[in-house]
Amino acid sequence: MTRADRYDRFFRAELDALKEAGNYRFFADLERRRGQFPAALNRHAGGERPITVWCSNDYLGMGQHPAVLTAMHAALDAMGAGAGGTRNISGTTHAHVELEAELAALHGKEAALVFTSGYVANWASLGTLAARLPGCVVLSDAGNHASMIEGMRHSRAERVIWKHNDLKDLEAKLQAIPEDRPRIVAFESVYSMDGDIAPIAAICDLAERYGALTYLDEVHAVGLYGPHGAGIAERDGVMHRLDVIQGTLGKAYGVVGGYIAGSAALVDFVRSFASGFIFTTALPPAVAAGACAAVRHLKASGTERAAQKARVAEVRARLDALGIPHLRNDSHIIPVMVGDPVKCRWLSDRLMERHGIYIQPINYPTVPKGTERLRITPSPVHSAADIDRLVSALAELWEQCHLARRPMAAQ
Amino acid sequence: MTRADRYDRFFRAELDALKEAGNYRFFADLERRRGQFPAALNRHAGGERPITVWCSNDYLGMGQHPAVLTAMHAALDAMGAGAGGTRNISGTTHAHVELEAELAALHGKEAALVFTSGYVANWASLGTLAARLPGCVVLSDAGNHASMIEGMRHSRAERVIWKHNDLKDLEAKLQAIPEDRPRIVAFESVYSMDGDIAPIAAICDLAERYGALTYLDEVHAVGLYGPHGAGIAERDGVMHRLDVIQGTLGKAYGVVGGYIAGSAALVDFVRSFASGFIFTTALPPAVAAGACAAVRHLKASGTERAAQKARVAEVRARLDALGIPHLRNDSHIIPVMVGDPVKCRWLSDRLMERHGIYIQPINYPTVPKGTERLRITPSPVHSAADIDRLVSALAELWEQCHLARRPMAAQ
Ligand SMILES: Cc1ncc(COP(=O)(O)O)c(C=O)c1O
Ligand SMILES: Cc1ncc(COP(=O)(O)O)c(C=O)c1O
Repeated sequence: MTRADRYDRFFRAELDALKEAGNYRFFADLERRRGQFPAALNRHAGGERPITVWCSNDYLGMGQHPAVLTAMHAALDAMGAGAGGTRNISGTTHAHVELEAELAALHGKEAALVFTSGYVANWASLGTLAARLPGCVVLSDAGNHASMIEGMRHSRAERVIWKHNDLKDLEAKLQAIPEDRPRIVAFESVYSMDGDIAPIAAICDLAERYGALTYLDEVHAVGLYGPHGAGIAERDGVMHRLDVIQGTLGKAYGVVGGYIAGSAALVDFVRSFASGFIFTTALPPAVAAGACAAVRHLKASGTERAAQKARVAEVRARLDALGIPHLRNDSHIIPVMVGDPVKCRWLSDRLMERHGIYIQPINYPTVPKGTERLRITPSPVHSAADIDRLVSALAELWEQCHLARRPMAAQ
Repeated sequence: MTRADRYDRFFRAELDALKEAGNYRFFADLERRRGQFPAALNRHAGGERPITVWCSNDYLGMGQHPAVLTAMHAALDAMGAGAGGTRNISGTTHAHVELEAELAALHGKEAALVFTSGYVANWASLGTLAARLPGCVVLSDAGNHASMIEGMRHSRAERVIWKHNDLKDLEAKLQAIPEDRPRIVAFESVYSMDGDIAPIAAICDLAERYGALTYLDEVHAVGLYGPHGAGIAERDGVMHRLDVIQGTLGKAYGVVGGYIAGSAALVDFVRSFASGFIFTTALPPAVAAGACAAVRHLKASGTERAAQKARVAEVRARLDALGIPHLRNDSHIIPVMVGDPVKCRWLSDRLMERHGIYIQPINYPTVPKGTERLRITPSPVHSAADIDRLVSALAELWEQCHLARRPMAAQ
């Protein structure tokens, strides 16, 4: 056996183990159609089929909004394709500068900094803050996203995990840290897989009492909550109490990229020391321009948020009427609980093949084993007919899959 | 003093230290003009001025190439702005699938995988391979890029650093590792700050002898070397000997994004286990389409590569004639050595203010202290008149800065 074959044999064995556990991921090959989303085309081994996407994080359909597309076309025409360098070496364009000003204003902060993704924003910012504040302890909600976890891991700082959304546990853990050590409380507003929401104000109270920096991931909330779409912290009137608000430009804002907003000093510190910010090509100016147009649009318009809310309520009511269990929460995310990776994939496959409905199964490691689910994200661009088809397909397959119905949705 | 003020005071003190050392980074605010690059507009405190960019990594001007822009406009019109999800959850579009097939073919590999950046490609791939091969040792060239270093750090695997491009040292270090431990030799082809090139074939010989996987970063070579622009490994006829070839879509290809190419098993392994690949929004389809067009164009056309080579030779000859010291190398990168962070910034500032020439100073930590430089990247879109202006401006300022001239360029 050759050298390369020996390594490949190891890789294949690990992949086989994934497949056996039902956790191997098959990517659906989609072709979105501008103006027709959530309709799309799915290419598969046997050909192609028209489908309706029910699991997108383009939560408001901004990925096809004329304001966004016009801004991107115009920026391509004016400035070309790529930025051509890192932010420091010829890659800072005026589109980046404008986007950062817009984001700072959105969150009521002195400054903002744009990264290539929300993942990199978390990894680089939390990693840099935790590593460089001498003796820092990071208090991390147990439900935090992989990008924050990797940032903390990167920092080598002490990490203390508090029980998900549990204020008592957070307080106990803050109390236990020697008074003179700097500390960061890191958490999310809307948790993406369960759709539950953090008690931000109460967490800020504790952070204040125990001298902690507050770091809030609003990736699944920016564009969606608050009068200007600045997120749950805006909705709750507590934006000014957060030291770092982190967000993405790739979900409700419909493009790609991530950012933090905070004090001028904190943002300049991350800008100056974060490897993941410094040593990478800047986002294309057209991406920055498109994201900026989306932020501006959703700052002024509440129409999309209201329509989304109505659709979410309708899907929930219809599922309830059929007794299909879904997690209760106050967000736009509807997790239909299956609890088995193989059944979850089976449901997803049948939805696609028989009904042209695309909902990716969410299995381990994205969610804990035993909590496998179909995560449904209704949007303003889903029609009443789309909802009818979704609900009746789910009802039919639920039966065939021998899954229990419940009189009330399960928690 | 409030809680937030205490943290800010720390951040400001660290920033002040950077400023005192001359290592604080000021970003130049640019507006590229499509079709006119390397001409651009620089906005500054006092207004704006037209400039010529001499430090871009849009090495061939592909960022304004009609083939790239047409593909991006078309993809925006057809598919909209963002991908709307992670690759696994509704974010894989046909544009991603096509781009990955194109990249695999370019490098003569079974498969390829696209990431949000070259940084993330390195961090996630090397991090995952090193972490998950049991007992793995990574042998890392001392000159490796931050993104590889962070990937290794992330993996917690044992890391052994070998002297930059030093085959004897690499062999000694390979020999010292117990025979049964898996190992990865990680290196670059063109090192971006010195422009020197690795002896790839000889490194592959050693890797074969000692049973190591080879991981090659061709970020500063893809698009630029080899008959199809596949990089130095293609130029040297050794692509088939590399287990992983990593590249970027943000430099010679003019857009943004990164990738690896390798065996089907290895690529599927990274796809299935790399957090930095899994838990992040996919690149916009228009970015994938633009990058794919750039790869295809530079696969078929050698015109841009030939023109770049001619420009590089001309700038080198003109600097030699004036005795301005620059590092000798066989690449397209011309590092003009200043050796002092304050003079380096002074030169850069004067070039911009007086001559409308933009060359970002390269200071610590991007290069070691004492090797501060102006890194010049001539491209096919720089004219003879651009070169005249560059060389005469440099000559004038060199004098004023009391920097030594040398009869022959220094090594
Ligand atoms: C909570 C959370 N934070 C961060 C990210 C990363 O953001 P992005 O997709 O922009 O990389 C995600 C998902 O992708 C997320 O769910
Ligand atoms: C050697 C090397 N590898 C990787 C990268 C990262 O690539 P990207 O800019 O696409 O993130 C860079 C520079 O940015 C680099 O110089």
